[in-house]
Amino acid sequence: MRDEAQPLRLVRLRRRTHFLLDSGGVGDRTAQLVHGALVTLVILSVAAVVLESDADIAARYGAIFAAIEYVAVAAFSVEYALRLWSAPEHRLYADLPPLKARAAFALSASALVDLAAILPALLSFFLTADLRILLILRLARFFKLARYSPGIRSIVAVLEAERKALAATGVVLFGVVLLMAAAMYVVERDAQPEHFRSIPASMWWAIQTVATVGYGDVTPTTAAGRIVAAVTMVMGFVMLGLPVGIVATAFAEEIHRRDFVVTWSMVARAPLFATLDASAIAEIMRYLRAQSLPPGALVVRRGEPAHSMYFIAAGEVEIELAEGPARLGEGQFFGEVALLRKTSRTANVRAITPIKLLVLDAFDLHVFLQRNPEVGRRIEEVAASRAEFRARSRDGDLIEAEIDERDIASRAGAP
Amino acid sequence: MRDEAQPLRLVRLRRRTHFLLDSGGVGDRTAQLVHGALVTLVILSVAAVVLESDADIAARYGAIFAAIEYVAVAAFSVEYALRLWSAPEHRLYADLPPLKARAAFALSASALVDLAAILPALLSFFLTADLRILLILRLARFFKLARYSPGIRSIVAVLEAERKALAATGVVLFGVVLLMAAAMYVVERDAQPEHFRSIPASMWWAIQTVATVGYGDVTPTTAAGRIVAAVTMVMGFVMLGLPVGIVATAFAEEIHRRDFVVTWSMVARAPLFATLDASAIAEIMRYLRAQSLPPGALVVRRGEPAHSMYFIAAGEVEIELAEGPARLGEGQFFGEVALLRKTSRTANVRAITPIKLLVLDAFDLHVFLQRNPEVGRRIEEVAASRAEFRARSRDGDLIEAEIDERDIASRAGAP
Amino acid sequence: MRDEAQPLRLVRLRRRTHFLLDSGGVGDRTAQLVHGALVTLVILSVAAVVLESDADIAARYGAIFAAIEYVAVAAFSVEYALRLWSAPEHRLYADLPPLKARAAFALSASALVDLAAILPALLSFFLTADLRILLILRLARFFKLARYSPGIRSIVAVLEAERKALAATGVVLFGVVLLMAAAMYVVERDAQPEHFRSIPASMWWAIQTVATVGYGDVTPTTAAGRIVAAVTMVMGFVMLGLPVGIVATAFAEEIHRRDFVVTWSMVARAPLFATLDASAIAEIMRYLRAQSLPPGALVVRRGEPAHSMYFIAAGEVEIELAEGPARLGEGQFFGEVALLRKTSRTANVRAITPIKLLVLDAFDLHVFLQRNPEVGRRIEEVAASRAEFRARSRDGDLIEAEIDERDIASRAGAP
Amino acid sequence: MRDEAQPLRLVRLRRRTHFLLDSGGVGDRTAQLVHGALVTLVILSVAAVVLESDADIAARYGAIFAAIEYVAVAAFSVEYALRLWSAPEHRLYADLPPLKARAAFALSASALVDLAAILPALLSFFLTADLRILLILRLARFFKLARYSPGIRSIVAVLEAERKALAATGVVLFGVVLLMAAAMYVVERDAQPEHFRSIPASMWWAIQTVATVGYGDVTPTTAAGRIVAAVTMVMGFVMLGLPVGIVATAFAEEIHRRDFVVTWSMVARAPLFATLDASAIAEIMRYLRAQSLPPGALVVRRGEPAHSMYFIAAGEVEIELAEGPARLGEGQFFGEVALLRKTSRTANVRAITPIKLLVLDAFDLHVFLQRNPEVGRRIEEVAASRAEFRARSRDGDLIEAEIDERDIASRAGAP
Repeated sequence: MRDEAQPLRLVRLRRRTHFLLDSGGVGDRTAQLVHGALVTLVILSVAAVVLESDADIAARYGAIFAAIEYVAVAAFSVEYALRLWSAPEHRLYADLPPLKARAAFALSASALVDLAAILPALLSFFLTADLRILLILRLARFFKLARYSPGIRSIVAVLEAERKALAATGVVLFGVVLLMAAAMYVVERDAQPEHFRSIPASMWWAIQTVATVGYGDVTPTTAAGRIVAAVTMVMGFVMLGLPVGIVATAFAEEIHRRDFVVTWSMVARAPLFATLDASAIAEIMRYLRAQSLPPGALVVRRGEPAHSMYFIAAGEVEIELAEGPARLGEGQFFGEVALLRKTSRTANVRAITPIKLLVLDAFDLHVFLQRNPEVGRRIEEVAASRAEFRARSRDGDLIEAEIDERDIASRAGAP
Repeated sequence: MRDEAQPLRLVRLRRRTHFLLDSGGVGDRTAQLVHGALVTLVILSVAAVVLESDADIAARYGAIFAAIEYVAVAAFSVEYALRLWSAPEHRLYADLPPLKARAAFALSASALVDLAAILPALLSFFLTADLRILLILRLARFFKLARYSPGIRSIVAVLEAERKALAATGVVLFGVVLLMAAAMYVVERDAQPEHFRSIPASMWWAIQTVATVGYGDVTPTTAAGRIVAAVTMVMGFVMLGLPVGIVATAFAEEIHRRDFVVTWSMVARAPLFATLDASAIAEIMRYLRAQSLPPGALVVRRGEPAHSMYFIAAGEVEIELAEGPARLGEGQFFGEVALLRKTSRTANVRAITPIKLLVLDAFDLHVFLQRNPEVGRRIEEVAASRAEFRARSRDGDLIEAEIDERDIASRAGAP
Repeated sequence: MRDEAQPLRLVRLRRRTHFLLDSGGVGDRTAQLVHGALVTLVILSVAAVVLESDADIAARYGAIFAAIEYVAVAAFSVEYALRLWSAPEHRLYADLPPLKARAAFALSASALVDLAAILPALLSFFLTADLRILLILRLARFFKLARYSPGIRSIVAVLEAERKALAATGVVLFGVVLLMAAAMYVVERDAQPEHFRSIPASMWWAIQTVATVGYGDVTPTTAAGRIVAAVTMVMGFVMLGLPVGIVATAFAEEIHRRDFVVTWSMVARAPLFATLDASAIAEIMRYLRAQSLPPGALVVRRGEPAHSMYFIAAGEVEIELAEGPARLGEGQFFGEVALLRKTSRTANVRAITPIKLLVLDAFDLHVFLQRNPEVGRRIEEVAASRAEFRARSRDGDLIEAEIDERDIASRAGAP
Repeated sequence: MRDEAQPLRLVRLRRRTHFLLDSGGVGDRTAQLVHGALVTLVILSVAAVVLESDADIAARYGAIFAAIEYVAVAAFSVEYALRLWSAPEHRLYADLPPLKARAAFALSASALVDLAAILPALLSFFLTADLRILLILRLARFFKLARYSPGIRSIVAVLEAERKALAATGVVLFGVVLLMAAAMYVVERDAQPEHFRSIPASMWWAIQTVATVGYGDVTPTTAAGRIVAAVTMVMGFVMLGLPVGIVATAFAEEIHRRDFVVTWSMVARAPLFATLDASAIAEIMRYLRAQSLPPGALVVRRGEPAHSMYFIAAGEVEIELAEGPARLGEGQFFGEVALLRKTSRTANVRAITPIKLLVLDAFDLHVFLQRNPEVGRRIEEVAASRAEFRARSRDGDLIEAEIDERDIASRAGAP
């Protein structure tokens, strides 16, 4: 309704703009170019800020740094404006009225990082701000990179999800630092008044000891002080387990969650499971496990006993048939014949690109097929048509690789 | 019986006192105020102790610090007395005779921390105690904060539960420090008699090396000493795994336990499950998984295939119906229609506050409903009444969101 | 057969000796005394060695240290001889011929530690050995403590089980140290020939950097050197995950294994499960989870909904019945009435010592009882006899707490 | 086809060559010798490079080092050539045409390490290369050891699999270092211009603080600087959880995967399971758990209740029967009699070498036998034949230990 009220061309442009800026650039040249340019500009402008802080370098190459800064601020300003304008196309704010969507987007973490990237320049028009804070703001551009890396987004998500547990750890850490600083202040004050003349002064020693950094600029010299220091170190040892435990556990869960999402979308897209309802998809998800292989690796070897079938999540494999090699790609499956007939493997299957497979063990397949006989029928059909095809093509050139004609793989020249 | 023997008014006052001091302050203004005041006072008085340790600051602001101390001791004394008096209302000591309850409470860890917070002041009336120990006692107030933070309580519970394993680690650590100190004493004694003249002296080097602190005030200079040091570092590397492993594992379990308790109480409170007995609740607990979302996030998108239904554990969502938005809150559920009818989603659902959801996958729901058909009937009723309501309200203003009339959500103005 | 051939008295004495030295001292005064004396002697003699290494202290208290050493060596020699003699009683070497059992024991790790504890003294009779190695040997006594601490034994078992993985980590660590030392030697050699004049010299810097100790006695000063150092630090950061991961995973498994063994022996001993065969015990083990509570804690609260029953693995609880309190101890169970009748709890149950409980959830109980109806009948019998008893004892004094008369708990005076 | 086209002798030689170089040397004297020689040569030549870097040692033993280098380069060159020639026999490149197999092998990581081991010498023929880079290349030989250690291969596989997550951690770490360096530069620049004169200079301080190395050559001296440093340390504390979590989780999975592969091949080889199809093998894999025991340990004790049966994965056990001891080795099983008859154990079973067992609990066995009755029949047959044999052999000498005659174990002399 909202979209119909606006000129259709504008909506299309807005959708395209949003796609170019936010799609991840998969499979679109222009989007990849835009992303590459933005990433390059981030890295260049951060490098310029870093190098410019050296007075010698600044004196020599100041003009270049200034140019980079102008270009970067201009580009980031345009980027910010376009992002704001195309926010209603954003998946998270879809179906909101345009102004609300833009307001919601403007308050999101990544939009604030975008704003911080241009704020120093905008501020310098209006006031002679403290250069030092501007410097930090300009470096914050670095975190614009987060948008282009799923890994960094995972880390941010983990820290975000566990911020309460981390804050509690921080409070306990602060309490330990406080107590040990006071203890050190009590025992070492007289021996080294210059380092331990007050609790705040002692805290400098305490934090670097608990964190196991140990610069060594302040160290206890009395026996009592060294015992306090030893206790502090042991406490740091134990405390270290808290953030590591929190972050490590959360990170492992985050990775599993991401894998789950990937697997789900893969299964839902596979033609074989197209007719399944959600409960059957949820069931088969429990049986599949992921496997990654480099190009050239043998997945299945002729003559080996068969104990699993494979779904291709990404990449391509080559089946080395007597009739010549055949290729299978994303969404297709193989290894079902030997499994259903309980024979050994009839052909080598080799990865020809880096591949991701979902493996289904024989036992799980049988359990699943008992509950979902129609899937079994479809697998049988594919297996039968493949066998028939191979019989037909003994003197032919092609091999049927999937249930319909579109999936027939072209034969490569025999080696 | 005990309560009837006492004047009823006093019992009510005691209950109110206990509620104000110990409830966590959820949903009660006065309790929140009391807690806020106590937390502020703890922070202020700890800050005063820390700053007072600096002679310069003490000379300048001594009067302020003294005032803070007087107020804090007075308040904490009253707090301690009230807690002691209202101890029979404490969940853990309920049903004990009042005196026994108070004695049990007085020996609990948190009551001892409370006592330590006022002990220095009490002691100074009777004797001229060592000021240094008093200082540490006064800083122990910091741990009064633990009462107000579930995170800190979790950390304390973890350290408490694993104290035996941590103590064993401590003994092994001590043994390693001892042996490596002796080895270093043997090889380095002649080269640096000032640092390694005895095993106790060498232990100062050993502990800071095993703990990977490495101040660097004592380092080996001979080749043999450096080899001993390298072995010590590698041992520290390996030893580090012990406390981290213990604490991290225990912390992960503690978090799961807390989640379990939260989920249990949520499920037990949900009207839908009110008729279930414990074994059915225990069963459905296995199927639910938690999910947290920020305000504004789309939980369910119109037109998507449905693979789960949702229970709201905390927060509110807005269903964007054609008839206007409707709100659902804690204890209600949504997403059941598409799941039962196997259609795709019929409306967007968006979080309007930060929300916690319990997600039930389609497959699990079907398994559970086979065993508990009465739950299925209730879900069907709600789904039917919602559909009927939506039919009726095409020209109306309201939407029935739950099974009874109280749950009808008020319609917000159309955007 | 072997035992009959020997005088029976001697066999009894040998069994008693082995029990006194190796039983862990549970429930036997003399054994506890023997263990206490041995532990004290270990600590005293280690402390003597440590303090004696200080020339001043040695000059002053040399006589005391010598006395401690004589007593310790004498006692440890007698202990070693007795252990060797009584080795055929050892669980691990049972059914071996005596001499073989003794030889096998003499080669075990703990016997070698025992031998090391007396070796220095034995050696000094025959040769004027290097005092330095003797010193280390004497300190190795510290590890005699491992015998008396399950925690330390767990740690040793973990390090033992993962020795291959840890060794591989050590080799990789060594490779990284080697490469980074060589890189630093290449870039920093000219700037600081005194610290980086050769690869072995650079390795001193590399190991303290990878292990994140960082004494700071050797640091790079050139830009290239600092970049190499930064890379080395990041590698140390990553490498740290290896031993931590290995040790933490293995430690978590070791704890679970220990818990499994404890639970198994508890379940096998419980009268309720006495008639079960191994497969049923193996089944119920999967359902039980452990819980520890401090004295005074409420396990079950009157009026609450019932969702689990409890088996007492260790400690005692008090049931606060209207007829007066009743006690239940190790091996007994409670909480079954409300669970079977689906009513709410009928009495408070409170821990009166620190207790360990095995908790069985309602859902699991029902599943288990369907397969093992005879256990259900026995639980029903106990529940019925308890109900009957309570009816009878409204004006009486006793309460039947378990299925047979021996278990009737004496009534304490009403509060 | 390819093989038939080549002279058969050559193919056999190539297969033998590949076996000698790549088999792991299990059970073949010559292969063990070849591996031993190569490992020794790697260690010697690396040691030579390390020691040669010291000018004094180089001057004295230069001739020896040169000799070692010549021998090593010659041997490694021959090894590389042979590996390249025999690559078509490699499991991963089997069924590829020879040239393709060799090209694929030449680009694998381990072949590149092999090439790096000889490259410096090869290069020095053609050009006067920079000696410093040659030095690093020569040390890279160290990683040739990876081929001979499954532990190192596991570590490499972990780092490889998690390279994306580790790279993301690295980028975040770099961002934190950058921001904290800039903050420190802002606050400390004026106080210590020699250390913090630019952001790149400050980064040297930041990286050693975040990585908790803390050399102490650069430390903040102002109060603001110390607060920035404290924040940096806490960030380092938290960041540490990321690589540890990634590596530890991946390492635990890698170990489980390796165990799975080992168990699978063991089960598939066991005669008892020879008739099972893949789905039944997949099922029983879920029930088995591994156990390792040292020689001399009692696996089963006469008179104890039976709750599991055992499959020998590696090593030998001795059954101490009244008729004399009998031995069982790899692939055989024991403990089934007491389990099937629900009696207690009838004989001691003791490990006589280090053994690896797969343990099957009673409950799981019964479940499995219900689905696979033919396995139950075979176990019954073995149990029956063993019982009959024991009856016959009361005055005889032999005991039948497995289902066919080849497996009869020879009786050792009675102790």
